[in-house]
Formats: sequence, C-alpha cells, structure tokens
Amino acid sequence: MKVFAVPDLPEISPGDSLATLVAERVDLRPDDVVCVASTVVSKAEDRIADLSAFPASPRARELAAGLERATGDEKDPRFAQAVLAESADLLMEAPFLLTETRFGHVTVNAGIDRSNVRGGDLLLLPEDPTESAARIEAGLDADRVVVTDTCGRPFRHGQRGVAIGWAGMPAARDWRGERDREGRELGVTVQAVVDELAAAANLVAGEGAGGTPVVVVRDFEFGDHGGSDALFRDVEGDFVRQALHEWSFEAE
Amino acid sequence: MKVFAVPDLPEISPGDSLATLVAERVDLRPDDVVCVASTVVSKAEDRIADLSAFPASPRARELAAGLERATGDEKDPRFAQAVLAESADLLMEAPFLLTETRFGHVTVNAGIDRSNVRGGDLLLLPEDPTESAARIEAGLDADRVVVTDTCGRPFRHGQRGVAIGWAGMPAARDWRGERDREGRELGVTVQAVVDELAAAANLVAGEGAGGTPVVVVRDFEFGDHGGSDALFRDVEGDFVRQALHEWSFEAE
Ligand SMILES: Nc1nc2c(ncn2[C@@H]2O[C@H](COP(=O)(O)OP(=O)(O)O)[C@@H](O)[C@H]2O)c(=O)[nH]1
Ligand SMILES: Nc1nc2c(ncn2[C@@H]2O[C@H](COP(=O)(O)OP(=O)(O)O)[C@@H](O)[C@H]2O)c(=O)[nH]1
Ligand SMILES: [Mn+2]
Ligand SMILES: [Mn+2]
Ligand SMILES: [Mn+2]
Ligand SMILES: [Mn+2]
Repeated sequence: MKVFAVPDLPEISPGDSLATLVAERVDLRPDDVVCVASTVVSKAEDRIADLSAFPASPRARELAAGLERATGDEKDPRFAQAVLAESADLLMEAPFLLTETRFGHVTVNAGIDRSNVRGGDLLLLPEDPTESAARIEAGLDADRVVVTDTCGRPFRHGQRGVAIGWAGMPAARDWRGERDREGRELGVTVQAVVDELAAAANLVAGEGAGGTPVVVVRDFEFGDHGGSDALFRDVEGDFVRQALHEWSFEAE
Repeated sequence: MKVFAVPDLPEISPGDSLATLVAERVDLRPDDVVCVASTVVSKAEDRIADLSAFPASPRARELAAGLERATGDEKDPRFAQAVLAESADLLMEAPFLLTETRFGHVTVNAGIDRSNVRGGDLLLLPEDPTESAARIEAGLDADRVVVTDTCGRPFRHGQRGVAIGWAGMPAARDWRGERDREGRELGVTVQAVVDELAAAANLVAGEGAGGTPVVVVRDFEFGDHGGSDALFRDVEGDFVRQALHEWSFEAE
C-alpha cells in the first residue's frame, strides 16, 4: 500500500473543483482511495463565515459565560452561537463544547476551524461530507473518496485523522461470521477502515502549512468482506454519551 | 510512504524472538517503523493463560452476575477475574467491562483476546508494551517500533488500530508554536502519530486468519516537530472518564 500527497495544490477558493485540481496533478487509478482534508472541501464549498453572521442568542451567551467561568479565558458568544447552529446535540457544555454535528460526527466546537482559513473568521465543516465525497468522486478516475478531519478523543491525548464522509466504499469491513487462525469466530467484528485510511492520510497531510490536503492511498484492498456504513453511533448505543448527558463540569 | 506486511511469519510461540523472525524476512532500513500486533507480542512473551488460573473472587462473581443481567448471556466469573487482574481501574461494569490496563490503555476487557490464541483460553496484552517495543527494536535494523492493538471507541462504531507501546520515536508530533498557512497559531496542537501508524498498519494486517501481524511503514517522516510521549490520559484531564465513574447502566 502506498500513501502519497497530491503535489502543488493551490490555495482553495469557493467554487473551485477539487476533482479537477487533483486530476490535473496525479494519474489516478480506479482503485485508489483519495483522502481529502475537510478544510479544503469546506473552502471549495464556501463554508467560510464571519462571526458577525452569528448574533448570539441568550443560550449562546449562557454557554460562553459558562466557558469563561470554567477556563478563565474570554469567550465570544457569537462563536458559541456558530457551534450551536452547526450542532444537532450538545454533549458537554464545559470546559469545552463537545457537540454532534448535523451529520452525526461528535467533535469539539462542531469541528469549526480557525486554522488555515482565509477570507473569514471561521471555517465550518462541510454540510454533508458524504455528499461532498460523492461529488468529488464523480469527477475523478478514482472510485473511492474519504473526507477527513483531525480531532481529539476520550481516553487518549492528542488528535488523529478520522473520516467524516466517504463514497465508493463502505465505512467498515464487517468480519462477522469469519474465523481466526484457530477456526474460532472473530472477536473484532467491524473494522472502521475509513477511519484507518483517514489516519494514514493524516500522517502525510500534517496539520500545518504543508499545503498537502489531498492524499492518495494506492493498493488498499478492502477484500472479500461484508461492508457496513454505520460509523457514527446513535445515543441509544453510546453509553459514554449517555453518561456525559448526566454529567456536568465542576471547577476545582 | 509505503505500508507492507512482513511475509510468511510462522505461528508465534512463547520464547520466539520476533525481531529475529522479522529480520530474516525483510531488509529493514533505519527509518522504517515496524508495527507489531500485540497478539504476537503476547504469544512471544507467553501471555497465554487458562481460565482456571483465575479463580473468581466475590467481586468477579458480582461483576459477572451484573453482566449476565445486563446482556442476558452467560458470563464466566473467572473471565471477570482475569480482567480485574489485568486492570488498574474499572470505568464501566455493564453492559461490558471497560477498564484501564496496568499500563494506562483504556479498552474493553483489559484487551484480553480470545481470537488467534493457541494453547490456552486467553491471550493477555503484553505487561508493558512500550518495554516490548524497545526490546524488539533492539534486535532490528529499524529504529522505530510500534506495538498495536485493535479496539473500539466512544462516539463511533467499529474498531480501529491503536498504539499501545512504542520505541524509538515520540508518541505524538507537537505542533504547538507552529503556524498555519495564514500565519495563525495552530488549532490542532498534538498529533498522535503512533495511533495513526497503528491504524495504517491495521489496514494491511487485518483481523482474521491473514497471518500478517507485522507491518512495515517505510518513508514516514516525523519531521521537525517537538515530540510528546503522553498518549494515555489521566483521569484528572479526562472528563469522559469522570462522567463514566458517576454513571451506571440501567437495563430498559
Ligand atoms: N494546498 C492547500 N493546502 C491546504 C489548504 N488549506 C489547508 N491546507 C493543508 O491541508 C492540510 C490539512 O490542513 P488542516 O487545517 O489540518 O485540515 P483539517 O484536518 O481538515 O482540519 C495541511 O497540510 C494544510 O497545510 C489550501 O487551501 N490549499
Ligand atoms: N503469522 C502469524 N500471524 C498471526 C499470529 N497471530 C495472529 N496473527 C495475525 O495477526 C494479525 C492481527 O491479529 P489480531 O488477532 O487482530 O491481533 P491484535 O489486533 O493485536 O489483537 C492477523 O493478520 C492475524 O492473522 C501468529 O501467531 N502468526
Ligand atoms: Mn478541521
Ligand atoms: Mn488536520
Ligand atoms: Mn487484541
Ligand atoms: Mn486486530
């Protein structure tokens, strides 16, 4: 398997065709997986916004005040408003806003970025990254596209690449019914390969000024497995989320 | 970056030198990252055990009974005892045992496997996977080793590869103080590259009878960044864990 960045991509602007820009720079094969950082998907889809577009509601002011109390830092209630506007559920109110985006991804601040943004204060995540992936895939010779983001997680420090949208392949390999080396049914049943692809791509893309938002994974074989497209847990099956709903932060 | 499996590894037995077996099969370069599935590290370190080695304490019987109530399935209290013996903390008692291993990794059942085990009922995780990684690295021409496992996570369905031990490199790239394309300080500050390497390796290793527990990542550049070895969160900074400590499962 090879993992390489598409070279020399320009600064992406609203209306740019990522598919065209990528196709001009690399000879893709049908079974390549093209991993695209959400940052540039958002830029192409004009998800750039100004704080002034989010006048703060009383709820946003309340959240910002709570964050100020918890962190000691000044917080702009309009940013809290933007997070609310992008979220379907609020999992934690302090010491940071952990939310579920409208498309089901759980992340801090609804994934709104302030890094690598030009022409506005904020970069919102794509509205429907799986639709974005399908649109990009339609313009490429490669049949598989993953839209990625970088985010944190419980239990482990640091961030890593994850998939937030995908097209042309299932999100996961389903190993159910398959056997291990001893003929025993497998303990691991569903392998979230789109997340593993996103993580591999992130090693090459990096987080900084590298300018390498699109990474090709070549010769990845999904193999002869069942597939599953369930990636985001519903609250019913997510005990961590249930626990968080009952919990609230108390400053020392 | 290339990601490829070491071919033709045999069934691993207690006392085997993984470094020797790998070195015989692939010409490694100093900057290769060798990712080794914990399964084979455990086999080589004789972490194979029988349930009979874990006579159930009253606490283990209580946990097994709680699991039976929550799931409707029969549970062996000796398995609960094995999980307790391998754990430093119990985060969830039902509907499954979520624990922190003695070396700091949060996972279900302390990562005890029943897949791909020969000669015993259970395969325990290595006692100190970072020490294991250092030992393997010492016998290889490659300077970097990551010991991996596959496990689940909150918010997202499915499992993915993660690092549980590492040697010859920091766990994470620290981007603090670095700038984005617009000269702004970065939002993402710490990138857990060992987890991303483990995820990339897992795409190739698979979960089944593939027989490919060792995967080489070639031409991965850590780059000119600060490093961090903090991978496992302490309970103090982990709000999810605090919430789980206050929560308990209630069957419908
Ligand atoms: N060529 C190019 N690279 C960009 C642009 N925006 C971001 N990048 C690069 O894309 C990669 C990922 O950026 P990041 O902000 O971490 O994206 P995210 O993970 O989707 O939030 C980094 O290498 C950035 O330098 C752009 O408009 N053009
Ligand atoms: N050659 C060889 N492969 C093994 C052995 N044990 C497991 N594997 C392979 O190692 C890979 C990972 O196995 P898995 O049970 O998922 O390990 P884990 O992720 O560390 O729990 C799969 O390709 C297995 O077939 C062994 O003793 N020898
Ligand atoms: Mn982002
Ligand atoms: Mn990123
Ligand atoms: Mn395992
Ligand atoms: Mn595995």
